Amino acid sequence: MPVGVFHSFNNPLFGKFAFYTGIVIGKTLLMSALTSRSRLTNKIFINPEDAAKFGGKGTTVINADQRVERIRRCHQNDIENVLPFVLIGLLYLVTDPDPWLATQLFRTFALSRCLHTVCYLVPLPQPSRAMMCSIGWCVTAFMTVAVIRAGGI
Amino acid sequence: MPVGVFHSFNNPLFGKFAFYTGIVIGKTLLMSALTSRSRLTNKIFINPEDAAKFGGKGTTVINADQRVERIRRCHQNDIENVLPFVLIGLLYLVTDPDPWLATQLFRTFALSRCLHTVCYLVPLPQPSRAMMCSIGWCVTAFMTVAVIRAGGI
Amino acid sequence: MPVGVFHSFNNPLFGKFAFYTGIVIGKTLLMSALTSRSRLTNKIFINPEDAAKFGGKGTTVINADQRVERIRRCHQNDIENVLPFVLIGLLYLVTDPDPWLATQLFRTFALSRCLHTVCYLVPLPQPSRAMMCSIGWCVTAFMTVAVIRAGGI
Repeated sequence: MPVGVFHSFNNPLFGKFAFYTGIVIGKTLLMSALTSRSRLTNKIFINPEDAAKFGGKGTTVINADQRVERIRRCHQNDIENVLPFVLIGLLYLVTDPDPWLATQLFRTFALSRCLHTVCYLVPLPQPSRAMMCSIGWCVTAFMTVAVIRAGGI
Repeated sequence: MPVGVFHSFNNPLFGKFAFYTGIVIGKTLLMSALTSRSRLTNKIFINPEDAAKFGGKGTTVINADQRVERIRRCHQNDIENVLPFVLIGLLYLVTDPDPWLATQLFRTFALSRCLHTVCYLVPLPQPSRAMMCSIGWCVTAFMTVAVIRAGGI
Repeated sequence: MPVGVFHSFNNPLFGKFAFYTGIVIGKTLLMSALTSRSRLTNKIFINPEDAAKFGGKGTTVINADQRVERIRRCHQNDIENVLPFVLIGLLYLVTDPDPWLATQLFRTFALSRCLHTVCYLVPLPQPSRAMMCSIGWCVTAFMTVAVIRAGGI
């Protein structure tokens, strides 16, 4: 492959990153859909125009309902963890990391985030969810340190 | 253009992606400014130090006000939809997609997000906003599937 | 460096971008850790299973506590500002900007975000935090306009 072209499918590691990024972003997108479904099923709306259209007669606007809020918190946790992973991952690829190590990191992150969602939505007893969140966090933190060192001024 | 260099203005599709990404990120940035303006105009503050400086005598700290909260929810919806679009879009470019199709996807996303903001802030009756949000969601989901397939292991 | 390869450590500006991006993403990651620590120290939990495991006997589930909420708002502000900066920064690099100007922008952003966190968590009197937030916002807005112009259709 041409020197310095890390964002290309000629780089096998890029393919792996693309695959696992697709999985975790796809999972994050599903959370939006789940939240909407939960609002419609439970008739919990946060905007008056939503209640007027989707709620039927007598539906009230409620700021928080535990069934909807749990899904929303899980979604927010994805936003706070998945998006930084992808951003740092794009830069980490350019540091030309060891392919075996990098693949394990991407795979571990994707797996821990999928299990995090299961722990949150079932919900499973703690500390299962805290552990899954920490594993993903450590992967991103590890890559962040590698990026800072590679860019070190 | 050199093989594999998709993130370059030598790739006309990159220029289009950059343009539409700039539009949607710029729009997201404007939501921060709108929230601040709404807080200052309506004297709704969430931190005591903000009320002390910007609120004048007797201003109280309020956790939620419907005028401010609507703008905040619109901003949050941008965060949840625009940022995943840009991340997946960067990877989607590398899959060397059909330029015509990709351009329509970028354009559709940018347009649907701008109309989503109009629907949310006016507000227009539902299901206008739900439709706009779904269109953008489907564009990102389509690109996500393409990225997973291209990176497929 | 090969024409058009901007995302490479052969491009010295990329190294600077990677360094400052690592700093601001790392700082954002630390906010998650700080929120968790604050929840555990103050025994403020939002999910029943968290209170059951980490809270000890008689701990209740509380939706909002000012000590935790301040850290969470600071984290949310990072999500809303740091992630758009990194996304637009990746595209801005490809516009082949003046290296001196671009370096100042990256440095200014990173510094303003670190000071923003100090202002928020101490907390310092306003308008210190508003100024730090505005500086970072202006950097991202400036780069966004440059990206839209470069991609201009």
